[in-house]
Amino acid sequence: MSAEPHPGVDEFEAIARLLRPLAGSPEALGLMDDAAVIPSRPGFDLVVSKDAMVAGVHFLEADPPDLVARKLIRTNLSDLAAKAADPYGYFLAAAWPQGSGWLERERFAAGLRKDQDQFGVTLLGGDTVSTPGPLTLSLTILGWTPSGAMIRRSGARPGETVLVSGTIGDGWLGLKAARGEIESVDPAAAEWLAGRYRLPEPRLELRDALRARAGAAADVSDGLIADAAHIAEASGVKLRLKLDLLPVSEPAFKWLQGQPARAVALAALATGGDDYEIVLTAATGHVALLIAEAEAAGVALTVIGDVVDGEGVSASFEGAELDIARAGWRHG
Amino acid sequence: MSAEPHPGVDEFEAIARLLRPLAGSPEALGLMDDAAVIPSRPGFDLVVSKDAMVAGVHFLEADPPDLVARKLIRTNLSDLAAKAADPYGYFLAAAWPQGSGWLERERFAAGLRKDQDQFGVTLLGGDTVSTPGPLTLSLTILGWTPSGAMIRRSGARPGETVLVSGTIGDGWLGLKAARGEIESVDPAAAEWLAGRYRLPEPRLELRDALRARAGAAADVSDGLIADAAHIAEASGVKLRLKLDLLPVSEPAFKWLQGQPARAVALAALATGGDDYEIVLTAATGHVALLIAEAEAAGVALTVIGDVVDGEGVSASFEGAELDIARAGWRHG
Repeated sequence: MSAEPHPGVDEFEAIARLLRPLAGSPEALGLMDDAAVIPSRPGFDLVVSKDAMVAGVHFLEADPPDLVARKLIRTNLSDLAAKAADPYGYFLAAAWPQGSGWLERERFAAGLRKDQDQFGVTLLGGDTVSTPGPLTLSLTILGWTPSGAMIRRSGARPGETVLVSGTIGDGWLGLKAARGEIESVDPAAAEWLAGRYRLPEPRLELRDALRARAGAAADVSDGLIADAAHIAEASGVKLRLKLDLLPVSEPAFKWLQGQPARAVALAALATGGDDYEIVLTAATGHVALLIAEAEAAGVALTVIGDVVDGEGVSASFEGAELDIARAGWRHG
Repeated sequence: MSAEPHPGVDEFEAIARLLRPLAGSPEALGLMDDAAVIPSRPGFDLVVSKDAMVAGVHFLEADPPDLVARKLIRTNLSDLAAKAADPYGYFLAAAWPQGSGWLERERFAAGLRKDQDQFGVTLLGGDTVSTPGPLTLSLTILGWTPSGAMIRRSGARPGETVLVSGTIGDGWLGLKAARGEIESVDPAAAEWLAGRYRLPEPRLELRDALRARAGAAADVSDGLIADAAHIAEASGVKLRLKLDLLPVSEPAFKWLQGQPARAVALAALATGGDDYEIVLTAATGHVALLIAEAEAAGVALTVIGDVVDGEGVSASFEGAELDIARAGWRHG
């Protein structure tokens, strides 16, 4: 763990007081070394993912620091969930705006602590620096799977069924709600949606079901259609999605009812991003059991399409194919 | 590998064209998955370190992007060098300023390629996002050591000798030179110093000697005295440094000659940071062989002090102890 002091907050002291208590495992060496050391674990693969977040881009400048910390951990845990990996630990790089104070860091550390405890991960190391720009965070998360058991994006095969967990579009609607840009939804529903944006739920409960029965999986961060396209590209297949089947929450359904064109509105939900659900494929013979196992674990899975020969993703509504390229499925 | 598009550059395309060619190992899954997967390596420990860099703070806004990329890799490799670990691979998070162009990214990727090839590391994954702030980079580096062989900061024992590699103070003088703030040094010397700041040399050649004979080691990033203090704190000992013995380069020596107070000037070099040398301790009986082995590997090691009971770091010049706390050894 290294640090760099700047006027206002002594980063060495901030690490000692705020971060060291989060680094309980022996591998972290109490954050007092240049590096962490992770012993080999024969029979297991280490699964590693890294996500970055910038204030004003990936979260709102006014978002409470504890929620920002928890969103950062959770978006990374979502990557592990999609790979059916068991969470283990993380490295944190934080560039704090010059002049940001002790209280923000304290709340940020409290958020880390809360989700560490909830999800069973521990801080292993990192770096704290200052920046003339916005708060910029990068987290590298580590997890374990039994050797060879990681679910990849590249495992989808023609004939398989496409499923998605939870509900889709809440993250995008939640961002609009948090910005006060949403109409036709009552305040309680808007608050619920904003909560989905601010504090996603990594679908770690799906691990056993995914390991047993999934072909391919990815987490829905860029948007359902974009992440389905990642599976299609990595697997060399085509995914056909029926937006009629898209699982939506009750607040999203209310929003849908106020929209003039249902197909366009569904496409917006399916391209919005920030859902942190899991899109996956499975052999059709496994689907019923997969859904039952997921339900027993507390997560709804919904069939939304199938895998065929070809490339890319198609999305249809009431039997008609939508022009999703024109719908801008890569929007940020 | 995930990405987020913004006006100007398509990050998906940038990753596909610029970064995928850097991710040659099977563990990276061609950057086409949510995560990398690293098989267990029985008999070895994985050594992991993470450093962040911000434009205008850790490098100059005008520094060429390829040199920035190489400095980023090298500062992280320096952590591995201090731990006597063999470089393996890295994860990269890059937050590019909105509006930065393709050419910058291309040069940045070219810098990564150059140092990947030189040091035998490979890109394993990461994240690319946009920021309204300055270019912000975070790299997580992975290396291997035989099980239990990592050199720690906590291994220093009373009676040991303190040594440092290369020369000290060039990084700090180099920053001044790059900013045109240095006097009493000719242009060629100033350019050499600026090069030391822009492109440090990770002392990976020391690995075998460190593994065989070092008690504790740390890389000199925060400044020799601060990093010696890290060893003292982690080991529960005191390090006594003699600034008379500080190894300095010829350009730094010329600068020293122009300074009114030698002790103050030496303290400035010893607290300046950005040297990316290695400060280490070794049993006194090992010192002669350690120096010989390092020299055979092409790296000079210099005795600069000893380890005693106590805590913290002391620095003396011509037998008189300096007040390094007042000298501000934690300056940024």
